[in-house]
Amino acid sequence: MSEEKKKRMAIIASKGTLDMAYPPLILASTAGAMDVETTIFFTLYGVDIVNKKKYASLQVAPIANPAMPSPVPMPNILGILPGMTAMGTAMMKNMIKGINWPTIPELIDACLEVDVKMIACTPTLEMTGVKEEDLIKGAVVGGAAEFLDFALDSNISLFV
Amino acid sequence: MSEEKKKRMAIIASKGTLDMAYPPLILASTAGAMDVETTIFFTLYGVDIVNKKKYASLQVAPIANPAMPSPVPMPNILGILPGMTAMGTAMMKNMIKGINWPTIPELIDACLEVDVKMIACTPTLEMTGVKEEDLIKGAVVGGAAEFLDFALDSNISLFV
Amino acid sequence: MSEEKKKRMAIIASKGTLDMAYPPLILASTAGAMDVETTIFFTLYGVDIVNKKKYASLQVAPIANPAMPSPVPMPNILGILPGMTAMGTAMMKNMIKGINWPTIPELIDACLEVDVKMIACTPTLEMTGVKEEDLIKGAVVGGAAEFLDFALDSNISLFV
Repeated sequence: MSEEKKKRMAIIASKGTLDMAYPPLILASTAGAMDVETTIFFTLYGVDIVNKKKYASLQVAPIANPAMPSPVPMPNILGILPGMTAMGTAMMKNMIKGINWPTIPELIDACLEVDVKMIACTPTLEMTGVKEEDLIKGAVVGGAAEFLDFALDSNISLFV
Repeated sequence: MSEEKKKRMAIIASKGTLDMAYPPLILASTAGAMDVETTIFFTLYGVDIVNKKKYASLQVAPIANPAMPSPVPMPNILGILPGMTAMGTAMMKNMIKGINWPTIPELIDACLEVDVKMIACTPTLEMTGVKEEDLIKGAVVGGAAEFLDFALDSNISLFV
Repeated sequence: MSEEKKKRMAIIASKGTLDMAYPPLILASTAGAMDVETTIFFTLYGVDIVNKKKYASLQVAPIANPAMPSPVPMPNILGILPGMTAMGTAMMKNMIKGINWPTIPELIDACLEVDVKMIACTPTLEMTGVKEEDLIKGAVVGGAAEFLDFALDSNISLFV
């Protein structure tokens, strides 16, 4: 029927840090606005991005990342002091606010508005004891085969 | 002859931690069972996954990952104490066993059974002094051009 | 006019460490030599790779990566001592020199020679205060939509 098939993007989100939560959500909401059909498969630590108890308070660690943008370069020894993850997180949140970027919950809403499909990985839920009712509204559960089915027919596939 | 070309997936595995060893192997063995022709290119730290001296004892670091699922949130300062990498690794191994997931060697076998091609990156071997005879049976050596040749004709490409 | 369309590869480079700067540049320069049209989108920490004040001195952190190849296994507690990032970096630079691999600036030149398009992410520049004149010659600025436009029509897409 449809002569022109919609373009598709398939993303795996495996990280649960604040910095690495942005790429899948920014790409998916942007693609959705371009009329690209998008699925994000949240696995491993990435499930935190659709866990309603956690997604508003994702953190970023200031250690083991010599490339972290920072007003002052910070040796690893400072990064391990209690409180520095909180400080690294606050610093990044400030930078994000400085350019008026949306928060993670706002981006999730933007994704849902353009019909991004969000699948939380079944074995990860089992492994970590997260229940389906802990997920944000709009997220469903599924396995690797379901992701692959969609991805095999996609124009873009990315592992974040 | 074959009217219907097999679908293909190309994965680069660049990480050698226990947690990040799972995604390429789970995806590849699942895809193989779906009759998808799959190649994994092991490069940088990812070569450990096909190093027979190392692949049964990959580890996961409990620091610098505020998203690590853990019964008790752990400040970075605890993560650097000697023994904590072992404890993080044991914790993850227990979670994996709790849901009857295969071990890395079992997953490698599952991949080989469905004919997943495993290529270890030649320059990484040279750089780290790993010899071809250190690799698990079934792995071959090759370079980026060989990976690209396969990937350019694949339905899915992922960098893990 | 052209009956045979050139193959295409789209890469996102999101990491700014020395080890993770290699894969996008090696893949892109290799693909370029194979006549594949390649675009790299530098975002988050990855912008350092095209920042002329930083790209010659990217570093690698020796902690939180139990898979780091090293002559001697190093507990995390050593990794946090001041000076260890420098030592990890020096160690990796030596390994790279040992196999005559190009440096990052040399690889950037190799990419430009085969017409790899390099785009630095506009919001990342705004967030971190990096100016367009801080970028290496040949890099341009652009957003996620520009990357997606290219990637949707590519044979390979990778998120590094």
